[in-house]
Amino acid sequence: MTRSELIAQIRLKKSFLCIGLDTDIEKIPSHLIQYEDPVFEFNKDIINATKDLCVAYKINTAFYESRGVQGWESMKRTLDYIPADIFTIADAKRGDIGNTSEMYARAFFDKSRSGFGFDALTVNPYMGHDSVSPFLQYQNNWVIVLALTSNKGSADFQNPLENGQPLFETVIKKSQQWGNAGNMMFVVVSTNPMLISKIRRLVPDHFLLIPGIGAQGGDLKMVAENGMNKDCGLLINISRNIIYAGKGEKFEKEVRAAAMEYREEMKKYLHSIF
Amino acid sequence: MTRSELIAQIRLKKSFLCIGLDTDIEKIPSHLIQYEDPVFEFNKDIINATKDLCVAYKINTAFYESRGVQGWESMKRTLDYIPADIFTIADAKRGDIGNTSEMYARAFFDKSRSGFGFDALTVNPYMGHDSVSPFLQYQNNWVIVLALTSNKGSADFQNPLENGQPLFETVIKKSQQWGNAGNMMFVVVSTNPMLISKIRRLVPDHFLLIPGIGAQGGDLKMVAENGMNKDCGLLINISRNIIYAGKGEKFEKEVRAAAMEYREEMKKYLHSIF
Repeated sequence: MTRSELIAQIRLKKSFLCIGLDTDIEKIPSHLIQYEDPVFEFNKDIINATKDLCVAYKINTAFYESRGVQGWESMKRTLDYIPADIFTIADAKRGDIGNTSEMYARAFFDKSRSGFGFDALTVNPYMGHDSVSPFLQYQNNWVIVLALTSNKGSADFQNPLENGQPLFETVIKKSQQWGNAGNMMFVVVSTNPMLISKIRRLVPDHFLLIPGIGAQGGDLKMVAENGMNKDCGLLINISRNIIYAGKGEKFEKEVRAAAMEYREEMKKYLHSIF
Repeated sequence: MTRSELIAQIRLKKSFLCIGLDTDIEKIPSHLIQYEDPVFEFNKDIINATKDLCVAYKINTAFYESRGVQGWESMKRTLDYIPADIFTIADAKRGDIGNTSEMYARAFFDKSRSGFGFDALTVNPYMGHDSVSPFLQYQNNWVIVLALTSNKGSADFQNPLENGQPLFETVIKKSQQWGNAGNMMFVVVSTNPMLISKIRRLVPDHFLLIPGIGAQGGDLKMVAENGMNKDCGLLINISRNIIYAGKGEKFEKEVRAAAMEYREEMKKYLHSIF
């Protein structure tokens, strides 16, 4: 999906919601366990309940890999089920030396080889430009560079409290030279408005993928106020607060209501730019 | 596998060779293509030809993921085929926030859930201690922290040429506080003897996993002279120079000869410590 197509979807749906399919078989409603592939059944119900309210789905690969070969099958069925006009993200945090990153690019972008044709992949930048560039060789696919997170360990390397330029800032400055606002985004998680607006100034045009609203303590209003640009420029990912909003056989209703609530709030913020 | 079991294997086999199963279906001998799972057939032949010469196999997950669900099946068959007394490494460079890293730990260590029971997993430290600690909760499993590589991009963040403490050094200093020499190793690739001996001084007891000898320009003698400790403390990974040493129907003979050559050289270096 191209940048202009993504922006068109945001305008159309009045939403910049990304729903995170971090599906844990131990947390899904019990009536689904009878199905051959309960994880896929759950995801299918979530997608049906929310596909008009969100512009992206993010699949956290760890949750699928934790079930081995079977989990990869559930991931494939899920990806195949997502409508083509919705942006798809493999949240896989991959990255390695060039020839290995080429293989990861095939794994997530080259449907003819791997069966998976995601629009975007999250990438860990630790190994530098030649670990990221193989992903940028694909037309209409996106690299989402891991920049800043808000977990406790983020202070270890990304954003140490000492003086000097923090690593996440070096990452954003350097990596924006490898791609452009049409094939690169950044993962940013922060509860600090100063940091969000600082990153927005560093990359005025790039989309930011912002997980961690809700469950990880982020705040939608703060992020919209400090992170939005003239094209929106934000994908806000919500996982647990939406997908586990319901428990019983009619869980989709609560899931839809939760997604709707986020979309209604986003509509307000979009009103100021579109 | 425990540290003392690994050292016992190194003494017994007079080898610290790790063979990298970076198996690319486009590079394997053509007569194998007729099999239902050519990647597994190739790996099986490699393992049969080398299992008495090496102490570890490293599976580069990217090469398997590039073939999707089918690739994960080949990876499972391969892991199941490796004898129990050989150390197994998933070279997957994983790492994410805590609950996601827990899922990756299940994926690679918890055979009852995922079907995969590797001894060790390579982990990307970018997100800090809570992204690594879930892997350290498993008894007898190992985290191999990505520290220093020698690809061009390594100068971007890990080891910038400017002044100050390079990131890889901060990573080694901090992360050795999270685990110990019995459950943590470091990935180190360098052609610089000063860097290898500097890292050895930082972590005198830890094993170092050293890929990149041969194909990536490393030098076995230099690494042994600068990186060995009293327990050996090294796993040297060779991939392409061994697994693609032969081309025809009898490729295993050339593969074995290539592995033997590395083992004979290692025997000399081990002679000085055991």
